[in-house]
Parts: sequence; structure tokens; C-alpha cells
Amino acid sequence: MEPVKRVRYQSFVDGIHWGELEGGSVHELTGMMGSPTGKQIDLSEVTLLPPCEPRLILCVGKNYAKHVVEMGGSASALPSEPGIFLKGLNTLIGPGDDIPYPSWTDDLQYEGELAVVIARTMRDASADDALSYVLGYTCAIDVTARDKQRTDLQWFRGKSADGFCPVGPWLETDLEPGDLRLRTIVNGEVRQDGHTSDLIFDVPTILSYLSKVVTLSPGDVVLTGTPDGVGPLAPGDVIEVVIDEIGTLENRVATGREG
Amino acid sequence: MEPVKRVRYQSFVDGIHWGELEGGSVHELTGMMGSPTGKQIDLSEVTLLPPCEPRLILCVGKNYAKHVVEMGGSASALPSEPGIFLKGLNTLIGPGDDIPYPSWTDDLQYEGELAVVIARTMRDASADDALSYVLGYTCAIDVTARDKQRTDLQWFRGKSADGFCPVGPWLETDLEPGDLRLRTIVNGEVRQDGHTSDLIFDVPTILSYLSKVVTLSPGDVVLTGTPDGVGPLAPGDVIEVVIDEIGTLENRVATGREG
Repeated sequence: MEPVKRVRYQSFVDGIHWGELEGGSVHELTGMMGSPTGKQIDLSEVTLLPPCEPRLILCVGKNYAKHVVEMGGSASALPSEPGIFLKGLNTLIGPGDDIPYPSWTDDLQYEGELAVVIARTMRDASADDALSYVLGYTCAIDVTARDKQRTDLQWFRGKSADGFCPVGPWLETDLEPGDLRLRTIVNGEVRQDGHTSDLIFDVPTILSYLSKVVTLSPGDVVLTGTPDGVGPLAPGDVIEVVIDEIGTLENRVATGREG
Repeated sequence: MEPVKRVRYQSFVDGIHWGELEGGSVHELTGMMGSPTGKQIDLSEVTLLPPCEPRLILCVGKNYAKHVVEMGGSASALPSEPGIFLKGLNTLIGPGDDIPYPSWTDDLQYEGELAVVIARTMRDASADDALSYVLGYTCAIDVTARDKQRTDLQWFRGKSADGFCPVGPWLETDLEPGDLRLRTIVNGEVRQDGHTSDLIFDVPTILSYLSKVVTLSPGDVVLTGTPDGVGPLAPGDVIEVVIDEIGTLENRVATGREG
């Protein structure tokens, strides 16, 4: 038996629900943290949505040493605290959704990441307790307009245009996040191949740090940083983020330039 | 007759509603953009809440020349585009709510600002059309942990701790935002005294710019920047932001240090 995965989905006859995926069947739940309603539906009859309903999308920058170096930093001057930034709720899209390529950037890039979804209200938690607040783990792409990230006052345009945060395809709820292999594949070619064991700040440390600044709410999502190998995207490119023991998130860059 | 103000409020007998304030009476509405239900209640019997229900809280940095200079910038090198950053939804508090003073900062500061609340979905709008998307105008404090703003990778801790965005007390819906006097008063002493006519990027320009990056939704709020005169706060300080033709937002800094 493969482990149970938690999904959020749209059924065209029955609206948006949370469910548990077992084999090819989705068992409807009363809510994100709810219990089975007894209804079930075939996976082929639903569209998977982002498996989170965040009030906050929080991200860690510069959290893999080789990525710090490829961005022009020094391996001997790694960050001493997590470097956090926000993505707006407008950025969230699901598996299979197109990523817009805005007209005001000429350097759209992928950053494949492990994402963590919060189960219950979390405030001022220790790293030892942090994983007990996690509902599950999934894949995400921190889509980045690298040119604007470099030149703007803050990373707003660089990180928060509409559709800049694909998340999915489901939550793996029974997983230890400390040593997962993460690959990003563009048009069939492996571009990033990292391990969460190389995170500068691991998942418990990130969550504890965040919880001393903000109250994390059920459904909030935390992107944990990207390994080395980031690079440009072109209209029509297909991006897969593959995390072992979770699965594959696939999105395509829209073919038309927007705006 | 004074102009009608739109309020969001909690009535302890009747829950949270939007309403119109006329004289001392609140006339309940069916929603933010709704029509009167016929019910009314005395202003003294309600608690005013932030007059917005945002999916995004967007802010403009460095938008008054004298403030750019006091922050160490050059008056001859003003920004050529609005410098936008996000505040998290966890930051939003209402009139009269206490502002937390987190334990990890030693330099909490006030920044009094004009805030704009969006009425309808706005995407890729021209500056000429921008004001037609506005529901109303109110006061806000962009509470800032200046020490962390200066040293962190991005402005997350500097701008987005819980309670760092008081907004209110109500929306002035029939107002031209181009020449409003804005004062920030701390413990009775005027610390900021500016005019929106001195904005580097005016309200239509800001909104048009934002709408080319994100889809603005009904209830979203945009903080337009702070004039010169920013400075530190201490536990127990009382801050008033007074904007002529709108009114006064008053908040106090909590007396206990948090975390």
C-alpha cells in the first residue's frame, strides 16, 4: 500500500473539496483537517487544486549553499538567520495550470522547492515542536522574474506576479522532510538535483523562526528554498518538480506574453 | 451634512458587518459593496474594525522625497518606478487595537500613510481609469522594525510581524486623494506633517502600476508611502494618524514586550 495523500480538488458536478487519495480513488473529507464523508470519486474525474488554503505564503531565500554561490554570494559567508520573504496570495496556482510570462520581464526563472503546509495555529514554537504543526509536504515552484528581483527596491515584482507560485500535486502527510531528493526538470532535462539534507536552515528551524514573527494559520504554506541549478524559462516550457516520496508537480509556461 | 463614511464593525449582539456611518448612527449594509438592510445601531455600541478585507496588502516605499532623504537617499536620485512591498494579512489590526512590540527588535517605528481600498477587480488598468476602481480612503500606520528592515535579506520582519498594519477608522468614499494633509502625532506631539500632493507617484499611478503585476481584488488595501518625520516608538506610546477630510486613526503600542 502506498501512503495516503491529502488532495484538494474540484469536481465539476460537486464543487471544491478536500479528500484522501488512495490508489485511483479520492475519498471526500469534510474539510482540510476533516473526516471522511463517505463519498468517493475517481481521480480522473477531478482537477487537483493547490493543496493549501493559505493566509500567508512564506518563502526562504538563499537556503542552499551552492545556490547562494551561483547567485554571486560567498560560500564562506552563508546567512546566519533564515532570509524570509512573502509571496502574495495572487501567486497561487495548481498542478497543470499555466505560469504567466509577464511582458515586463525578460528573465523568468524556475526555482524548484519543497513546500510545507501548516495544520494548526502556530505561534512562538520551538524547533523541537515544529514538525507537530505540519499537515504535510508538497512540491512548489518559486517562479522568479530575475531581472526585476535584481533591480527593484524589494522582490515584489520578482516574486509576486499572478501565477508565480504553483503548488502541488498533493500533501504527503506521513513523511520526514530531512533528506528528500528534489529535481527540477525542464522540457525533459534535469536542471536542479538537490537534497533537503543540504538545507542551511532545516524545516524545524525555519518554522520555529517564522513562528516568532507571525502567527501561522492552518493552510499556510512555507517554501523552503531552492538548490543550485536555477535558470531561465521560455514560453511553452514544461517544468516538473519531482520530490522523492512525494511526487511530481508539472506546469507549463504560457505561450502568450501577458500585459 | 458631513459626507457618508463606510465602516466595518463588530456588534456584540449581532456579529461583523459593513455599514454606513451618518452622524452617530451606523446603517447596516448587506456587504462591503452592498445596500442598506434597514437595520441601524448606535456608533457607541460597536467596535470599528479595519475597513477592508484584503487578499493583498500592498505598500509603496520611498514615495515622498523628504522621506527618501531622511532614510539616507539622495534627492537627486529619486525612484523612477514605485518601489512596492507586501505586508502579510497577519499584520492587519483596527482602530484602537494595540500594536505589539516584538522582543527581537529594538527600533520599532511609526510611518503614517494614506491607504486606498479597492472596490472591484482591477487588472492592467490605466492611470486615467484607476480611481474608478477605488472604494474609499482611510488612514494606516506602516509599523516598521527599522533595525531588521536595514539588516535582513528582505523586509519581512521589518514590515510584517503580527499587528504591524493598523488601518481605519473608516472609508471616506467621496474624496479626491491628490492634496490631503497627513499628520502623525505621538503622545500629543506632531511628528509627521505632509501632503499627498508631495507623493512622488500619485494614487492613480500607483494603482495602474500594481494592476500590471497583480490582480487587485475587492477589499485589497494599498498604503501609499510615508512623509518625512518617521521615528521610534516606545511601549505605551499613543499614535494618531490624522488625515484631513478623513479622520483620525489611533493605536497604542502594547506595554509588554512580546515573544
